[in-house]
Amino acid sequence: MSGESEQEDKRDDPPEQQPAPEDEHDVGLSDQFIAEILELESQNYTDRIQELCRDLSAPDAAELLAKVDAERRHHLVQILETVIPPDTFTYLDKSMMNDLFQHMSGTHIAGIVNELDSDDAIHLIDELDGDRRADIMRHLSRRVRAVIEEGLTFPEESAGRLMQREFVAIPQFWTIGKTVDYLRAAADALPDRFYDLFIVDPAHRFVGSVSLDKLLCAQRAVKVDTLVNEEHVTIPVTMNQEQVAFQFRRKDLLSAPVVDEEGRLIGVITVDDVVDVIDEEAERDILSLGGVSNSDIHLSMAQTAKLRSIWLTVNLGTAFLDTLVINMFSGAIEKIVALAALMPIVASMGGNAGTQTLTVVIRALATKEVSAANALRVTWKECAVGILNGIFFAVLMWVIVMLFYHDNKLALVMGAALIFNLFAAGLSGALIPLVIAKIGLDPAPSSAIFLTTVTDVVGFMAFLGLATWFLM
Amino acid sequence: MSGESEQEDKRDDPPEQQPAPEDEHDVGLSDQFIAEILELESQNYTDRIQELCRDLSAPDAAELLAKVDAERRHHLVQILETVIPPDTFTYLDKSMMNDLFQHMSGTHIAGIVNELDSDDAIHLIDELDGDRRADIMRHLSRRVRAVIEEGLTFPEESAGRLMQREFVAIPQFWTIGKTVDYLRAAADALPDRFYDLFIVDPAHRFVGSVSLDKLLCAQRAVKVDTLVNEEHVTIPVTMNQEQVAFQFRRKDLLSAPVVDEEGRLIGVITVDDVVDVIDEEAERDILSLGGVSNSDIHLSMAQTAKLRSIWLTVNLGTAFLDTLVINMFSGAIEKIVALAALMPIVASMGGNAGTQTLTVVIRALATKEVSAANALRVTWKECAVGILNGIFFAVLMWVIVMLFYHDNKLALVMGAALIFNLFAAGLSGALIPLVIAKIGLDPAPSSAIFLTTVTDVVGFMAFLGLATWFLM
Repeated sequence: MSGESEQEDKRDDPPEQQPAPEDEHDVGLSDQFIAEILELESQNYTDRIQELCRDLSAPDAAELLAKVDAERRHHLVQILETVIPPDTFTYLDKSMMNDLFQHMSGTHIAGIVNELDSDDAIHLIDELDGDRRADIMRHLSRRVRAVIEEGLTFPEESAGRLMQREFVAIPQFWTIGKTVDYLRAAADALPDRFYDLFIVDPAHRFVGSVSLDKLLCAQRAVKVDTLVNEEHVTIPVTMNQEQVAFQFRRKDLLSAPVVDEEGRLIGVITVDDVVDVIDEEAERDILSLGGVSNSDIHLSMAQTAKLRSIWLTVNLGTAFLDTLVINMFSGAIEKIVALAALMPIVASMGGNAGTQTLTVVIRALATKEVSAANALRVTWKECAVGILNGIFFAVLMWVIVMLFYHDNKLALVMGAALIFNLFAAGLSGALIPLVIAKIGLDPAPSSAIFLTTVTDVVGFMAFLGLATWFLM
Repeated sequence: MSGESEQEDKRDDPPEQQPAPEDEHDVGLSDQFIAEILELESQNYTDRIQELCRDLSAPDAAELLAKVDAERRHHLVQILETVIPPDTFTYLDKSMMNDLFQHMSGTHIAGIVNELDSDDAIHLIDELDGDRRADIMRHLSRRVRAVIEEGLTFPEESAGRLMQREFVAIPQFWTIGKTVDYLRAAADALPDRFYDLFIVDPAHRFVGSVSLDKLLCAQRAVKVDTLVNEEHVTIPVTMNQEQVAFQFRRKDLLSAPVVDEEGRLIGVITVDDVVDVIDEEAERDILSLGGVSNSDIHLSMAQTAKLRSIWLTVNLGTAFLDTLVINMFSGAIEKIVALAALMPIVASMGGNAGTQTLTVVIRALATKEVSAANALRVTWKECAVGILNGIFFAVLMWVIVMLFYHDNKLALVMGAALIFNLFAAGLSGALIPLVIAKIGLDPAPSSAIFLTTVTDVVGFMAFLGLATWFLM
């Protein structure tokens, strides 16, 4: 759609077929487009690749790079480095970015960093491998270096890391007319995008924010401070990003002022950064519930295997505990081998029912739907649900065991163990995350392992114990 | 902080203790505040409760209502109905909202709906229990009813359901000066909040959008259409909300125009709605991976038990499959009872390794980090990771089995089964979600059950089969 001439680069005569023009309403890059680029890359039609990728946004360019293998990625970056936006690299996975940077000079990377917004620059430098960081910092402009050094002093995942230093602040006593005249005159010096105006006092302390739609609709003679938003939100620079995101969601903010301990305005957080935080937090919860600490989709095979083995080792410990419990009852199993075949059912039902409870409670903790005010009520309900479903599945299993084994006592033992384990699952599924959250830790990564330890041990113990008691 | 007089309502002499003034930087309601309100409620200090809750935002009021038990919730709504914002109800869980509405008259509820933004009104009506809906629709103003009826014709979770009908559109040929004059004159008729101006042609077809910061910084003589954003994003009214959210994230949008098939501008989607969608989608993924279809934290015990039992029944089927597999090898178990104690380790390690792969792949599918372009590479890597970790844990388990059972053959069988099952876990953990996504379904709800079926059956079969072969 762009009006740029497409003629010049045609001289090296690339294949006729037009690369997939993306469906106007499709999102992201089409696989067809990526395949086309790879085809051109293998035939070394660099001009044509540059031409096709000239209009890619940073996230799209990052997607292209992320979806090809390492070797071709290096080649594509060489071809595209003058064409893709500098912030492309901030959208790449950390390991991938560092890998690409290994083949670039320090001056070149510093050139990229110099062009970024302050928050992106800090994020990029923070993700650099240690030895490389010092090298690149040396090549940065003095101003950018100072901003980054200051930014890195704020704790990770705090508002200070998230904020941009570029914002629009005006004095309290201005009128709309004066403000608009100022904005028109200063247009070139203002940030690329801004969503609210911030009013400050002479000591640069934050007084209030005015949204642009209010400003646009007001008469020139009106004083700006009469338009200040009633909801007085300020973000302390040390606030955790999760809290920041919660504020934005609760108050439907577009941007929010970041202040230091003295209330002085030092930055702004915008809603697009908050959307990234929400994504990040959701990703962390999903992954850690699945036993993975970070998305390792872009890591090498060896790194992935190593990282995942940590969790699997913990799980091996739990599984071995099961072995010890089962061993205690080897006499019973030797006599009634059906016990060995039925016992996984008790453990598995408990594990699954407990995971249901756990997931609901962890999610409700994240959305603050559960807190001290209703924690007890929630726990009690989960226990009751466990008992209810325990009774239901006890009856169901009684029927099944009778059909297959024609043994009423065995069927009763099975049922009793199920009720007991589903109750234990409800209780521990609620209590484990609540307790972990209470002591100030994130319940997502470790809750599951405690839970399955409980449901496995209680499941095997109850079933085999009752069997020993009643059937021997 | 508000300047309203606190004197008047003091006549019924509520307890002296000040209810927790929320920490200025805390988010949401404090548990202390909720406890205080409940204390006042039990003593029937209605005036004081109204006074304290007068400034609550809709989400805060909803949080208060959600965190108390059903009986007190009904009482609090009676006390607060004139005080809390009408959109409070849209923040409540569906079942809770319907429960509260059962005690309100149709006219009253219609009054609430009449005051809502169009998207909120549609959402609320959509969540009403069927028999109630017709009753309330009858009491609505004709204009609101027409908007809702039209809104409900769009598919669920489509852009049409998400959009607001209130937006600001201006003709192509206007200058900035004329636009600003218009906004100032029409201020009262404009939507409460707007984030972009939309330019339309005489047939009301969307031409482009102008962000307010650009508008504010431009000179009066400039034509608006020279300020149009380059990224030309339009949302077709039938687009799925997940796609809409992806667009917003990719392009850092504040709002986006919704168009019908002829390209006519019919609504606007704003970033705060998109944030809700992102939350909703993340919640759905987290919950469905945990075997729960919706957050049931606010449902009754019986409803919760019923909903969860569906998933548990499916799981029972899988677990029973294990029983059948184990039964096939009951002869071997009878002779070597250690097999019964060790077999859960093989199944459990496979299940956990598979869940890791599954989680990473499902998440990467959601963020479009995995697509046809790299699906094969990802699958191959997961298989390799499975084999690598299989070998590592095979060696570890060989040592453990030797220590506990002093049986080299048994230890070797254990190791071989682990390698085999971790390979199967990597392969199926990647393939199952990829195939489900490929056929156009959401992989999150059902992948896990297929996976554990594979890892359980393969685990028990490999271990007990190899044991029968080599140890008997």
